[in-house]
Amino acid sequence: MLNATEKFSGRVGFLGLGIMGAPMAQNLIKAGCDVTVWNRTKSKCGPLISLGAKYRSSPEEVAANCDVTFAMLADPESAIDVACGKNGAVSGMGPGKGYVDISTVDDATAKLINGHIKATGALFLEAPVSGSKKPAEDGQLIFLTAGDRSLYDSVAPFLDIMGKSRFYLGEVGNGAAMKLVVNMIMGSMMASFSEGLLLSKKVGLDPNVLVEVVSQGAISAPMYSLKGPSMVKSHYPTAFPLKHQQKDLRLALGLADSVSQSTPIAAAANELYKVAKSYGLSDDDFSAVIEALKAKSHDTA
Amino acid sequence: MLNATEKFSGRVGFLGLGIMGAPMAQNLIKAGCDVTVWNRTKSKCGPLISLGAKYRSSPEEVAANCDVTFAMLADPESAIDVACGKNGAVSGMGPGKGYVDISTVDDATAKLINGHIKATGALFLEAPVSGSKKPAEDGQLIFLTAGDRSLYDSVAPFLDIMGKSRFYLGEVGNGAAMKLVVNMIMGSMMASFSEGLLLSKKVGLDPNVLVEVVSQGAISAPMYSLKGPSMVKSHYPTAFPLKHQQKDLRLALGLADSVSQSTPIAAAANELYKVAKSYGLSDDDFSAVIEALKAKSHDTA
Amino acid sequence: MLNATEKFSGRVGFLGLGIMGAPMAQNLIKAGCDVTVWNRTKSKCGPLISLGAKYRSSPEEVAANCDVTFAMLADPESAIDVACGKNGAVSGMGPGKGYVDISTVDDATAKLINGHIKATGALFLEAPVSGSKKPAEDGQLIFLTAGDRSLYDSVAPFLDIMGKSRFYLGEVGNGAAMKLVVNMIMGSMMASFSEGLLLSKKVGLDPNVLVEVVSQGAISAPMYSLKGPSMVKSHYPTAFPLKHQQKDLRLALGLADSVSQSTPIAAAANELYKVAKSYGLSDDDFSAVIEALKAKSHDTA
Amino acid sequence: MLNATEKFSGRVGFLGLGIMGAPMAQNLIKAGCDVTVWNRTKSKCGPLISLGAKYRSSPEEVAANCDVTFAMLADPESAIDVACGKNGAVSGMGPGKGYVDISTVDDATAKLINGHIKATGALFLEAPVSGSKKPAEDGQLIFLTAGDRSLYDSVAPFLDIMGKSRFYLGEVGNGAAMKLVVNMIMGSMMASFSEGLLLSKKVGLDPNVLVEVVSQGAISAPMYSLKGPSMVKSHYPTAFPLKHQQKDLRLALGLADSVSQSTPIAAAANELYKVAKSYGLSDDDFSAVIEALKAKSHDTA
Repeated sequence: MLNATEKFSGRVGFLGLGIMGAPMAQNLIKAGCDVTVWNRTKSKCGPLISLGAKYRSSPEEVAANCDVTFAMLADPESAIDVACGKNGAVSGMGPGKGYVDISTVDDATAKLINGHIKATGALFLEAPVSGSKKPAEDGQLIFLTAGDRSLYDSVAPFLDIMGKSRFYLGEVGNGAAMKLVVNMIMGSMMASFSEGLLLSKKVGLDPNVLVEVVSQGAISAPMYSLKGPSMVKSHYPTAFPLKHQQKDLRLALGLADSVSQSTPIAAAANELYKVAKSYGLSDDDFSAVIEALKAKSHDTA
Repeated sequence: MLNATEKFSGRVGFLGLGIMGAPMAQNLIKAGCDVTVWNRTKSKCGPLISLGAKYRSSPEEVAANCDVTFAMLADPESAIDVACGKNGAVSGMGPGKGYVDISTVDDATAKLINGHIKATGALFLEAPVSGSKKPAEDGQLIFLTAGDRSLYDSVAPFLDIMGKSRFYLGEVGNGAAMKLVVNMIMGSMMASFSEGLLLSKKVGLDPNVLVEVVSQGAISAPMYSLKGPSMVKSHYPTAFPLKHQQKDLRLALGLADSVSQSTPIAAAANELYKVAKSYGLSDDDFSAVIEALKAKSHDTA
Repeated sequence: MLNATEKFSGRVGFLGLGIMGAPMAQNLIKAGCDVTVWNRTKSKCGPLISLGAKYRSSPEEVAANCDVTFAMLADPESAIDVACGKNGAVSGMGPGKGYVDISTVDDATAKLINGHIKATGALFLEAPVSGSKKPAEDGQLIFLTAGDRSLYDSVAPFLDIMGKSRFYLGEVGNGAAMKLVVNMIMGSMMASFSEGLLLSKKVGLDPNVLVEVVSQGAISAPMYSLKGPSMVKSHYPTAFPLKHQQKDLRLALGLADSVSQSTPIAAAANELYKVAKSYGLSDDDFSAVIEALKAKSHDTA
Repeated sequence: MLNATEKFSGRVGFLGLGIMGAPMAQNLIKAGCDVTVWNRTKSKCGPLISLGAKYRSSPEEVAANCDVTFAMLADPESAIDVACGKNGAVSGMGPGKGYVDISTVDDATAKLINGHIKATGALFLEAPVSGSKKPAEDGQLIFLTAGDRSLYDSVAPFLDIMGKSRFYLGEVGNGAAMKLVVNMIMGSMMASFSEGLLLSKKVGLDPNVLVEVVSQGAISAPMYSLKGPSMVKSHYPTAFPLKHQQKDLRLALGLADSVSQSTPIAAAANELYKVAKSYGLSDDDFSAVIEALKAKSHDTA
């Protein structure tokens, strides 16, 4: 069992080696951890095995052979299947073990998986991350965790290898909620920035100069500096798909509705992402929301 | 007359020694410039005179005795009066001189002053700043200038003493427009951030943690880190008055209306600042807009 | 079995005798129909029995003894229980019979009940109504029906007794959808009207005169004339509870989201109903949304 | 001078015989009034002269020869020119006479004309109307008057010939304000109705049925029944130009801003009219705002 004195000697499992999972697992291996990997498409395990990782042929076997198992799946369905499905991690869990789900899932999914894991006597932590591919590679992710506090304390050294900061937020569901709130603000900020870029252009200013002015003042944000220049060129290379940003706004509005919190800015922003979706921009980067604010050619036919 | 080789040897006038003007003039003096000051309330000139500044008893005399004259007044009325009123700067202007108005004024005021200055044969530059008291003291302001390009080039060394960056935006009016666009985005961002703080609290998260999470990711902005902690405590010490933020949103919406640019986020944000004004928060900091989103006790009597 | 020539001679069941159901059943009885009633609280059947109605002790028995059975329940849970629960109507259904659910339920509930009824060989019609207590008493309801067309044709004479008009909208779910769209417009109209009443008052006009002016022009609506005078007095006697209007807006926004239809007005209106809910006005009439637009006393403590 | 006993025997002047003015003057003539007309383009006076009207060659002469003079001009500039310009009505005014301006003008224009008229010792009434061409022809206009109460009382019989109702609202400016509030609600209602039409269609309902359902319930409004059918066909024959509706929304928002009244619905609606303007629909009917909510083909090139 993991404890403070043997943190780094624990056996670590890693399930899911996609765009985010692979670099995260790699960072653990490079830091000297004893890592066992599994991925539905086995070929993705190759590079990690050559770096020193062990391999097991099912989530169940990984869980059975490790002290703590991390999971980074693409969506709620996969997260549930890998944890609770046939030969899933739950089957290999038990007292003294821990399961950390890094996947971004909804509240209900987190609670469902938590229930199954806890029933085996193991501990559970939801730990969705803020940050995408680049921060994952650079070990600069931000972990928004919730669940068993003792598991959080035990895995802290691993989280510190993969990320630059971590937050413990209490009971399961709070990690997902915090991520929704952050993404709600992000969605509104991007919509507001889009308004500014288009307004500056329409009144004869250079939107590139606006990007630079903004970058130097109190409202400077990395997101603006990163995406502003390509938005001016109407290029939206996908880092975070627009349909996911719209989904997060919808879920955040649902969360706000459930507690009667007024959020008129997010509501107005959500409408713009819906317009962008109706323009066929679902799979573009969420910065493509700026298209929803442009005058389109009119055809009533 | 100012030129590239004698930049720092020019005689510099400074009109208006308020909360912004005093530290700006002081930075010029400390950098070794030959500065002549004037202020409606003469007593405010004292500290600068003791630092080495000369004094003249009217804007006209300052202008007559200097190569370039800066003006930093509180509002459009004062800016017009100091420039065009009795014993105003215009009376002391002429060919070979320059007038730089740093005051934040509307488009029409900038053009009016520009017309009077140009009629004397002198050059004009509007140069509103992004940044408040602290950046003024630290020489970290951002200048958004427009007008005579040659005057811009001549005064660049002075701007670099008072600020950290400067932009030349073309014809008079563009400086004011750029500032409005930036403040429009700022107003929407603050409203969105307020929604996030309140929503996080209502669903049982610690808003202080939200401030910290936000500060580490792609949407991190100095404004959030600076004002977030006091907003959580419902404290709004005034750096930028709410009524001024609302006025800027109103003017930005007017600008957007004039070119038929859709700005639904700014429109929704403006409504919140109006609500905050109706709550009596006009003179609080603009971060007090968060109050507009809080549930109030209901009384239909 | 019902057919065109024996429409009025069919045996009619009526389940649910609440604020809407009782006057509807009464109108059928007064028109000479052969009506059998049931209600969970049996005492409510008394007045109708004395008017000539028969009584059966369960939905199953009513269905078994009637050609067509109407159900008017308070919420989806009750609608499901009365239809599909123990001794529910489904148990008494079969080929040649029809079930008409007048309850306002969501799409999924309508489809669930439809499935159970159809499995017995009987026909199904969803038929939510537009109109509240008074139109129910006056036989002035509007039926928004969907499901089996032949059942619609058969029950048309009964619908015409209880209502002033009826619409057949195609497949099950369309009745609920149409009602949501209508209520979405209604919610926005009430919010807009509230803005007008408050603005007129704040600029020194008499809001009662606004009510009268509006009542005579192109935007005149019965709802404005009915509720305007009491809104001016801050009285909101409940005809349609505010929480239900907010729920319908939420559901309509969800519907719009599912097809990426932009609805910024409804989104803004929904925020106001949320504010009104947070003020404790959930059970007041939905016209109490006007309170969300009033300046409240400010208290940051 | 006009008084209660000689109401109908007074000499009535009518300035401005456009789309609204001509039928209004005609109704006065047909009712037996002694009417003297003037129009900038004299040819428009012909039909009225053949109905019995007298003609004078300037506003001044009309005013000099009549007890009360009505003016119905197209815009504030024309209203000022006809009243206060060379050979304008003011030159013919004096004690015992009255001037009633029916033109829709802004607050400032109404007050300007009022000042000039009152300076001659004559009385003034602003009297903008609710209603367009058809109500003007049918004598079904609604007068929103403000100014001298005694003049209002004196001209009441004439207003009753041209309209179906009249309101006296107090001091000059209130007529214009009331009209703005009414048109603000109208603009929001039309935007909300547009959302409903498009949502109904997207979820597979027939928007024509929605128009009919709406027409029978609590939210039924003449405007919906009149314009709904053509909106479904994307036809927008101009009765009230979209650019005028957007201007009225802008002015109403300005009015609301001046008293810090929150109007989020009108603000959201205004954004849609701006979008419609950017689509080139300024001169279409204001019901063309529905186009702003339709998905447009996307082109980022």
